[in-house]
Amino acid sequence: MILSALLTSVGINLGLCFLFFTLYSILRKQAGNVFVYVPRLVDKQKSEEQSDGLNLGRLLPSDGWVRSAWQLSEEDLLSISGLDALVFMRVFIFSLKVFTFAGIIGIFVLIPVNYLGNQLSIDDFYDLPNKSLDSFSISNVNDGSNWLWIHFSAAYIFTGVVCYLLYCEYSYISSKRIACFYSSKPQPHQFTILVRDIPSSSGRSFSEKVESFFTEYHPSTYLSHSVIHQTSKIRGLINDADKLYRKLARIKSENHSKQKFKRDGFLGLFGRKVNILDHYEKKLEDLEENVRMEQYSLASEEVPAAFVSFKSRFGTAVVLHIQQGVNPTEWVTEQAPETQDVHWPFFSASFIRRWIYKLVAVVAVIALTIMFLIPVVIVQGLANLNQLEIWFPFLKGILSLTVVSQLITGYLPSLILQFFLFFVPPMMILFSSMQGYVSHSQIEKSACTKVLYFTIWNIFFANVLSGSVFYQVNVFLEPKNIPKVLAQAVPSQASFFISYVVTSGWTSLSSELFRLIPLLCRFIRKLCARRNGNKFEVPAIPYYSEIPTVLFFGLLGVTYFFLAPLILPFLLIYFCLGYIIFRNQFLNVYAPKYETSGKFWPMVHNSTIFSLILMHVIAIGIFGLKKLPLGSSLTIPLPVLTLLFNQYCRKRFLPMFKAYPTECLIKKDKEDQNEPSMAEFYDKLVTAYRDPALMPVQYARNVDRHNSPLLHSEV
Amino acid sequence: MILSALLTSVGINLGLCFLFFTLYSILRKQAGNVFVYVPRLVDKQKSEEQSDGLNLGRLLPSDGWVRSAWQLSEEDLLSISGLDALVFMRVFIFSLKVFTFAGIIGIFVLIPVNYLGNQLSIDDFYDLPNKSLDSFSISNVNDGSNWLWIHFSAAYIFTGVVCYLLYCEYSYISSKRIACFYSSKPQPHQFTILVRDIPSSSGRSFSEKVESFFTEYHPSTYLSHSVIHQTSKIRGLINDADKLYRKLARIKSENHSKQKFKRDGFLGLFGRKVNILDHYEKKLEDLEENVRMEQYSLASEEVPAAFVSFKSRFGTAVVLHIQQGVNPTEWVTEQAPETQDVHWPFFSASFIRRWIYKLVAVVAVIALTIMFLIPVVIVQGLANLNQLEIWFPFLKGILSLTVVSQLITGYLPSLILQFFLFFVPPMMILFSSMQGYVSHSQIEKSACTKVLYFTIWNIFFANVLSGSVFYQVNVFLEPKNIPKVLAQAVPSQASFFISYVVTSGWTSLSSELFRLIPLLCRFIRKLCARRNGNKFEVPAIPYYSEIPTVLFFGLLGVTYFFLAPLILPFLLIYFCLGYIIFRNQFLNVYAPKYETSGKFWPMVHNSTIFSLILMHVIAIGIFGLKKLPLGSSLTIPLPVLTLLFNQYCRKRFLPMFKAYPTECLIKKDKEDQNEPSMAEFYDKLVTAYRDPALMPVQYARNVDRHNSPLLHSEV
Repeated sequence: MILSALLTSVGINLGLCFLFFTLYSILRKQAGNVFVYVPRLVDKQKSEEQSDGLNLGRLLPSDGWVRSAWQLSEEDLLSISGLDALVFMRVFIFSLKVFTFAGIIGIFVLIPVNYLGNQLSIDDFYDLPNKSLDSFSISNVNDGSNWLWIHFSAAYIFTGVVCYLLYCEYSYISSKRIACFYSSKPQPHQFTILVRDIPSSSGRSFSEKVESFFTEYHPSTYLSHSVIHQTSKIRGLINDADKLYRKLARIKSENHSKQKFKRDGFLGLFGRKVNILDHYEKKLEDLEENVRMEQYSLASEEVPAAFVSFKSRFGTAVVLHIQQGVNPTEWVTEQAPETQDVHWPFFSASFIRRWIYKLVAVVAVIALTIMFLIPVVIVQGLANLNQLEIWFPFLKGILSLTVVSQLITGYLPSLILQFFLFFVPPMMILFSSMQGYVSHSQIEKSACTKVLYFTIWNIFFANVLSGSVFYQVNVFLEPKNIPKVLAQAVPSQASFFISYVVTSGWTSLSSELFRLIPLLCRFIRKLCARRNGNKFEVPAIPYYSEIPTVLFFGLLGVTYFFLAPLILPFLLIYFCLGYIIFRNQFLNVYAPKYETSGKFWPMVHNSTIFSLILMHVIAIGIFGLKKLPLGSSLTIPLPVLTLLFNQYCRKRFLPMFKAYPTECLIKKDKEDQNEPSMAEFYDKLVTAYRDPALMPVQYARNVDRHNSPLLHSEV
Repeated sequence: MILSALLTSVGINLGLCFLFFTLYSILRKQAGNVFVYVPRLVDKQKSEEQSDGLNLGRLLPSDGWVRSAWQLSEEDLLSISGLDALVFMRVFIFSLKVFTFAGIIGIFVLIPVNYLGNQLSIDDFYDLPNKSLDSFSISNVNDGSNWLWIHFSAAYIFTGVVCYLLYCEYSYISSKRIACFYSSKPQPHQFTILVRDIPSSSGRSFSEKVESFFTEYHPSTYLSHSVIHQTSKIRGLINDADKLYRKLARIKSENHSKQKFKRDGFLGLFGRKVNILDHYEKKLEDLEENVRMEQYSLASEEVPAAFVSFKSRFGTAVVLHIQQGVNPTEWVTEQAPETQDVHWPFFSASFIRRWIYKLVAVVAVIALTIMFLIPVVIVQGLANLNQLEIWFPFLKGILSLTVVSQLITGYLPSLILQFFLFFVPPMMILFSSMQGYVSHSQIEKSACTKVLYFTIWNIFFANVLSGSVFYQVNVFLEPKNIPKVLAQAVPSQASFFISYVVTSGWTSLSSELFRLIPLLCRFIRKLCARRNGNKFEVPAIPYYSEIPTVLFFGLLGVTYFFLAPLILPFLLIYFCLGYIIFRNQFLNVYAPKYETSGKFWPMVHNSTIFSLILMHVIAIGIFGLKKLPLGSSLTIPLPVLTLLFNQYCRKRFLPMFKAYPTECLIKKDKEDQNEPSMAEFYDKLVTAYRDPALMPVQYARNVDRHNSPLLHSEV
């Protein structure tokens, strides 16, 4: 790729960006789009804009939303979207800091040094536009040149600065985590644990066992428990009832609107409809009865797992952190998820079974990650021009057009890749839910790591180590050769990744900005759901696909920092845009579905450390290839020091992301003692963790109130 | 090595063994040797055999001690020497089970199969005595022969049996561990934790901080605390005083024995002696005064660490398992060691400093392990015949004798190696104590692992991968080639290891049996100490050097199980002898210095798993070399399954070796509530963890009672 081509690409993409910004600014003001652009506001106010008249101001773009997103303070963001959103924004701030520093060094020191070299003296010095991008990378510095020591120093300085920023950020976020805990109201999950693998004994139910165990060993703190039941059958019945209920509500709603015109008309006039209604109502009642019967009979089908609640946070922590039974695979405790975050299936699995599921999931993820590109390449091979002509003979005329054939040859392979990639996050979610996690947040966090591994392998390594899968895997089985192989391969792929950041990065942000593809689908779905009497839902940010994408761009920037500094300005623009867009769209679009209190941060920290080490390994190889063996040897301490820094951070900060310390727990408990509302809270706590499938169902009475949200369960 | 040579070696060693047994049986009955052969009895009865007359029975060997050692039940062993000794014996029982099974398969199945092959058709089939040992190893089976499937099945069956035995043993020992805890009396360390890195604040002493922290956060369970002081200076003074006191006691003792002859003689007669006595007594008083002054002034020099005691075991566990302060590097808690097990130095080091010490120790151990053979080889190179003749010209005549020169060429190199090896365990102890452990047991446990790593590297790998250190390290940097390299190298070294087991294994046991080298030294030291008025001490078993030796022989057996089954009968004899010898001499010689309640077992488990994996890796390589690629591929699941089994054991049993569960702790606590002696125990607990250096000193009054044990500290 030459410089002029890159600049053209940048121009086109910046133009598109600007266009999207303008369109966004106009479209978001249209009344019909509120569900797409400000769903949170809709949810909050429970009122929809009614005026449909034409208004000139609504057709002019405005920058008010950018300003309001920029001016949003951290406290506001925290109160609006919780700590997870704040941490997500801190990832952008951290990246901006890193790439501002890197960009300054890269543009003003490294690019001139690279450009002045003449290792790749393939083109004229003054013919800047036709210069290959490689001229700006380290490949252009002469072998054995002393200028390489500038790169060497840059690697050390950059690592130092990134580690310093990581430390500050880790420290800041962990202090925020504690502060949020201090300011939090009593919440059921703070007082509850999940106990699994309750040992079975003949003649006693699991409920009795739990009761006797905790009253014996934790008499002063134990409050209550609710044993989990096998409810997959009931859940099926309730699903059926739900569908029928929606159908019924829709019919009634249509009925009702017709009645408006005939206020005093009576139901008998709509004979056929009423018959159908009667029929459906009867069916619904039968289903309801079935559900009640099943609920009654299932009460005995207990699963050896229970939510156990305690009177204090510290009492909960005591049970959580100390092994309970003599056998460590019995009475296994873990922190209960937030009530709305519980993932109800998979509770029945025993210790051994969960362990096997986990192994299977790990194997599946590794297989998917390594083998992913094989079917993609096969399908790409099948979907060439000749094959298409054979399959769809009627397209022959169109396919023979030069523009169409170029489009197909150029874009079809990447379209197929994108199509396959589209299925990866849902598959990772599936694998994670197989692992036996009990909450959506854990599943998404685990899927997030998986998607990240997947992206690093299939986008980074598969592109860098172009060749067969077995060759790629082989490289990692010979650790001694890794620096050399990477040093040969990585810089030559620099121009690919620069164009990748420019096109794919900005486009992905723009599509988020425009909210066309993902949200319009949701929009249509929501509208349908509303028609069916369903409750309107504000979308939650899909961390499991967003965080890996953002981190991958960080990985590229850190790895290429001194290899190809040209990548840095584009990353700066990417993170700057991302910062504004995600701040807006926390404000107006996304609502938190759960709160992990910043547990995503350690993942960000680890992947940054990974990128640094990757950079160091490549640096060791590059200085060797560039005939600077001293530089190569002197770089070896750098990854060691970075790993030690990481180890220190694990000791210093990580425990705070796993559990809260005694000091915090007891302070909060003491505060609560003086709260008069605690008695009421305890009352609520007793029923907080009941399986929704076991709650009483009441459809029949609800049917007439078709405007009310669908609550198939009422406490 | 040929068979006849091996049999000769076996004959000589068995003969030596028998001789040692006989000598032992005679020598142990001589009155003068009681300190060497039955020190425990001496310590127990506090009486020495007085009769010195000749007795024919005492000169005849008897097997009573073997019978009593054999008949000793596990309960007796447990009550006499504690759980650690029992676990050590279980290692022998486990090894005996493994090698009985392996021996039967090896001798009756594998050796015939190997012998019938003719891959190494170098010598006559019927000339058994001159057969190379390699004819009994897998090397002799023909390439691609179907007989190799017998070896393949043997590897699977053996792995299955070893894993089953490991599981049973782990289960048995963990149940014993719980049983011992249930039957234990209240002990200070069960109620105490060590808190380190107490945050400093101006104006308040560490003692005040500890008091206020624990009364605030653990008011119902907190009992007392004792802050640790910087006492290295006092310890130096006390050492000086100790020496002086011993000197004085000796002089007085000599004085006293002379007085016996002159009962009414008065001290004035020994003018010179009395003057010296006066001088020394004055000096001792001064020293004592100095110690008191230092103790008084040092009371303010607190270290940010304290032993904190609680009223219940469960209360202690709560503080131990839950992070206390907001900062995880402050208020760091760990289980307190037994009172007699505390290692007082190194308490002052901060979190960061301990961490750095630990890193330094790890680096030092790795360097020592990898580089150890370099100086050895250099010294061995220097100490050859010619060099000796140059250095010691007067030896020229003796050195020219064939016998002497053969002896020097044959034995000097291994003597030098043994000499260097002699320093390894003490060095590992030094490194471990640098790591900041607070108890002797932790230091020894850590040194034990280090010695094991060292032995595996320097005896096993250095012999198998003969070549430069860098070549050896290199092999492990290319994991893909490990199976091949090991498969080529290991079987060819089989005869070396068989002779190693025969000579070194039995000799090391015989020397233990004869107790000549290590114990005679101690005996002399003890006698000297007694003369100086020192207390007689029963030796404690040095686990840190015994366990690695035993495990190393296990490693050899498991690794060579199907490669060279000839090793198995010799290992059987080794473990059988070891079993009898260690059971005796627990009975009569060693006294437990501390009790880790079997915490050594997981190490045994892990090293057995390591040996199995090593065997599998070599098997994969061997089947490849033997042109049985299918066998090679089908062996791959074996190490994976073994690692999964290990992972399962880690989940199922390891937690029980780290801490006791709630169920046990609360049961014991409830039992204690009804004990009337608990009030007295709590009183003792308050002062249980006081630094001996800070206890009041009273030499002056003790001097006259020179027969009493030296107690420089009296509570």
